[in-house]
Amino acid sequence: MTTSSSKMGKVENKQVIFKGYTDGSPVETDMELKHGNLIKLEAPKGSNVVVLKNLYLSCDTYMRGRMRDRHDSYIPPFLPGSAIEGYGVAKVVDSDCPDLKSGDIVSGLTNWEEYSLIQNTGQLKKIEQVDGIPLSYHLGLLGMPGFTAYAGFYEACAPKKGDYVFVSAATSAVGQLVGQLAKIYGCYVVGSTGTSQKVELLKNKLGFDEALNYKEESDLEAALARVAAVFFAALVVAGTMWYFPEGIDVYFDNVGGAMLDATIANMRNHGRIALCGILSQNNRNDPQSFRNMFSVISKRITMKGFLQSDFVHLYPRFLEDVTRYYKQGKIVYLEDMNDGLESAPAAFVGLFSGKNVGKQVIRVAKE
Amino acid sequence: MTTSSSKMGKVENKQVIFKGYTDGSPVETDMELKHGNLIKLEAPKGSNVVVLKNLYLSCDTYMRGRMRDRHDSYIPPFLPGSAIEGYGVAKVVDSDCPDLKSGDIVSGLTNWEEYSLIQNTGQLKKIEQVDGIPLSYHLGLLGMPGFTAYAGFYEACAPKKGDYVFVSAATSAVGQLVGQLAKIYGCYVVGSTGTSQKVELLKNKLGFDEALNYKEESDLEAALARVAAVFFAALVVAGTMWYFPEGIDVYFDNVGGAMLDATIANMRNHGRIALCGILSQNNRNDPQSFRNMFSVISKRITMKGFLQSDFVHLYPRFLEDVTRYYKQGKIVYLEDMNDGLESAPAAFVGLFSGKNVGKQVIRVAKE
Repeated sequence: MTTSSSKMGKVENKQVIFKGYTDGSPVETDMELKHGNLIKLEAPKGSNVVVLKNLYLSCDTYMRGRMRDRHDSYIPPFLPGSAIEGYGVAKVVDSDCPDLKSGDIVSGLTNWEEYSLIQNTGQLKKIEQVDGIPLSYHLGLLGMPGFTAYAGFYEACAPKKGDYVFVSAATSAVGQLVGQLAKIYGCYVVGSTGTSQKVELLKNKLGFDEALNYKEESDLEAALARVAAVFFAALVVAGTMWYFPEGIDVYFDNVGGAMLDATIANMRNHGRIALCGILSQNNRNDPQSFRNMFSVISKRITMKGFLQSDFVHLYPRFLEDVTRYYKQGKIVYLEDMNDGLESAPAAFVGLFSGKNVGKQVIRVAKE
Repeated sequence: MTTSSSKMGKVENKQVIFKGYTDGSPVETDMELKHGNLIKLEAPKGSNVVVLKNLYLSCDTYMRGRMRDRHDSYIPPFLPGSAIEGYGVAKVVDSDCPDLKSGDIVSGLTNWEEYSLIQNTGQLKKIEQVDGIPLSYHLGLLGMPGFTAYAGFYEACAPKKGDYVFVSAATSAVGQLVGQLAKIYGCYVVGSTGTSQKVELLKNKLGFDEALNYKEESDLEAALARVAAVFFAALVVAGTMWYFPEGIDVYFDNVGGAMLDATIANMRNHGRIALCGILSQNNRNDPQSFRNMFSVISKRITMKGFLQSDFVHLYPRFLEDVTRYYKQGKIVYLEDMNDGLESAPAAFVGLFSGKNVGKQVIRVAKE
């Protein structure tokens, strides 16, 4: 017996709805799983719409900014009562857009639901599937986070071969690639993370030279001084440049706050800090206290905020480079895959306490 | 009747002695006027020493850093019990250094005393006197502060014609030149200062487009938003680029702290901040609270600490440019001259409450 919905050519479309604005750290109840929404899997003629079957959805820390009622950012807030918008990989099931046809696989901005009708198809890119590269990697390694790492490292960090590079949130979707690109570039790389399991992954799987668990450090500045000393020891061992003051040349900052302040105290002269995120701050306007700003002057440090969207001209080169490195086995990518749209709210919330190990993805449907 | 000192060929050398390290804001009792020290005005053969008669001494805010017992800065601490070291203009009265002879006028590092024996003569530059340029200007307009303004504006601020430039401590030895160089460069310039008299000087004497008295502002962020609106209005009047978000392109920061935080909130996308000093902080390691660090990311702001000493290759061009601008009447320079070595401690302390109007200089002896 058919249901009334299928009689009308409609299917149920489960959704994760954004309930309303919050200023604190996101909690699961900021979102709600909604059943019973019916959708017709047809792109109306003349609409330029594509109908997507969502396969993978991306949980990204920047989305926290869209849960706040502030219109002064680089991206507008979510709409309460609507499905959450985010990056996804999806299959086209119907299309009125000349550039896309049924069966195509796309990545880009979609919604947290089983099926999405997308009118703004300029936000979607057709994926040319490459043997051996999982589709979900288009949300991480080959997606926005990967490109953030690429643009941030090569452009905002202005790296030099032999630089001593420090990365915070080092197993994150962005951090893990920054460290690996820095290694390929010929840098000495130390990462900070929040569990001993992740410390092991950084050293043994992602190829970082050293890693520290910041949650086990009562004094971040002293911990970073140890890291700086490690850099120094490496210099002495290498037998070159031992006369430089010990310390960090490049800091790729994903967390802000106390870690940023502690790192400034351990930077070398002419060091560079790429400011990518402030994961440590629940509310981005909470005061952050800095004791070491004078060192930014005395050490002639450059701190550079950046957004990947300013570097779109590098995107083709990024895809080519990172695909090649991956196929050559020069980089690996850690992914944390949760199954089912139901798992999305908890997975997203987990980002802010570091529950995820690697890039957090939701599998909505089987390929 | 001759005194025993003149009998021995010695003269009295009054000095300002540094008494001991302090972590707070400097007070006059951190220094002491010492009489009775006797000095022979002779450069011993083979010593490479020059004997200087100090004419003008410079009071500079960076000297506060040398009153602290910290050896991690770009310049070592003062030596307690010795005369304070600082920039000065002096006349050579005897010389064992082949490059300098009696009667030469030099500028460079000397001591807060009537006569100085200087062995490190590489720190001294012979001044070629230029008609119409006061000798004391070699401590300000044509000295370290002027060069700081020049290197900081052209290099650290990366200015573009038409930029909207904001300068704090705008009548200071550095700030007043930054604003005037920015005007010559074709920028719209607003300055912040601490008295209504200085607001008038900025607008009517130094050619700033606008000025604000930060001490009269209960909400710095709102005050800066007004400045940003002024920028915006100027854009609209000019009929160009009105579609840019209102705000500040370039901030030349002499004060740090709350003003820096408030300015970040009013910067435009891709704005640049040159970090030159933290005059607002009594103790450079006192925590500074920032609420707007996220905007450094979302607006892609670059914050650059700099020291003039990294740009010595620009020094000849600086001297040529600024001398020419001054002779052409394109720039003026405010100087606050106090008479006598006795006046030095109070004049120096006054820098930190903004008592000085323009570059603070001490006249030790008549030319």
